[in-house]
Amino acid sequence: MNFQLDEAIEVLGNTPNTLEYFLSNLSPGWLECNEGEGTWNAEEVIEHLIECEKTNWLPRIKSILEEGGRKPFPPFDRFAHLKEKPEGAMQEKLQQFKSLRSQNIKTIKAIIIPNLHLELTGQHPAFGEVKLRELLSTWVVHDLTHISQIVRVMAARYGEDVGPWREYVSILK
Amino acid sequence: MNFQLDEAIEVLGNTPNTLEYFLSNLSPGWLECNEGEGTWNAEEVIEHLIECEKTNWLPRIKSILEEGGRKPFPPFDRFAHLKEKPEGAMQEKLQQFKSLRSQNIKTIKAIIIPNLHLELTGQHPAFGEVKLRELLSTWVVHDLTHISQIVRVMAARYGEDVGPWREYVSILK
Repeated sequence: MNFQLDEAIEVLGNTPNTLEYFLSNLSPGWLECNEGEGTWNAEEVIEHLIECEKTNWLPRIKSILEEGGRKPFPPFDRFAHLKEKPEGAMQEKLQQFKSLRSQNIKTIKAIIIPNLHLELTGQHPAFGEVKLRELLSTWVVHDLTHISQIVRVMAARYGEDVGPWREYVSILK
Repeated sequence: MNFQLDEAIEVLGNTPNTLEYFLSNLSPGWLECNEGEGTWNAEEVIEHLIECEKTNWLPRIKSILEEGGRKPFPPFDRFAHLKEKPEGAMQEKLQQFKSLRSQNIKTIKAIIIPNLHLELTGQHPAFGEVKLRELLSTWVVHDLTHISQIVRVMAARYGEDVGPWREYVSILK
């Protein structure tokens, strides 16, 4: 096991600034490209991350600490942001994500006592018993997955433009 | 073709800050992990990016503008940073990368005239004739590849820790 709460929080704390700098001052061509029908562009990924801060991670953490696996996790719809298209400019959404993340990190620092809580379990609606430390690890990896997704989508935009280098660049495969 | 010089420069300009924020205040466990024997950790990726700023992108661009394909590109060793292990702390290397990138962007803005130069060709030692616009597109995609690589390596550190979520997180596959 590599998970440690303080190290997980290091990564969770860096994600909003990372995305803000990665996506700053980009032309619409970069922000609006996706991987085809039914895939997400950068803005939709940020909207999804916002939705997760509101209705996924913290409610599930609280469910473990308060319900201890007696009830399944509260419902979470990972396509919610596609149904009620959130308004506002990209920059506002990045600030909203940063503010929610900062608040959620403060909360978990206040409510989680690693020595007491990390092995506590909750009930995932699809695959049953999960530990708090597994949920927290997944939060970190989920951030990394979506950073990677945005990076990959943007790279694909130049997939043909690289010419003969295409065979040498792993991200295009 | 999606390539446009000004849009390419947007991404090239964002990479140093993105990596600086992504890697700031991380414990050694995050910075030192890799994907096994012969693979690079985050610090080695930054060292490679520095090496590319010095001996790959700009020398090749100048070769196209000055030699126009009469000579092959000057040699570039993509493992140079592993042979002469660069000294200095991660933070210094990130600042060095930022400074070199900033200087190189200034230079290409000064020497490349899009309407005149983008179709000019150089001679790649492995696969022959390449266009300036293909080289510049590859520079962008190369940045994105290495951001993605660092993100993937860090995610793999929690590959087991996510427990039953492992099957649901694409970056771990």
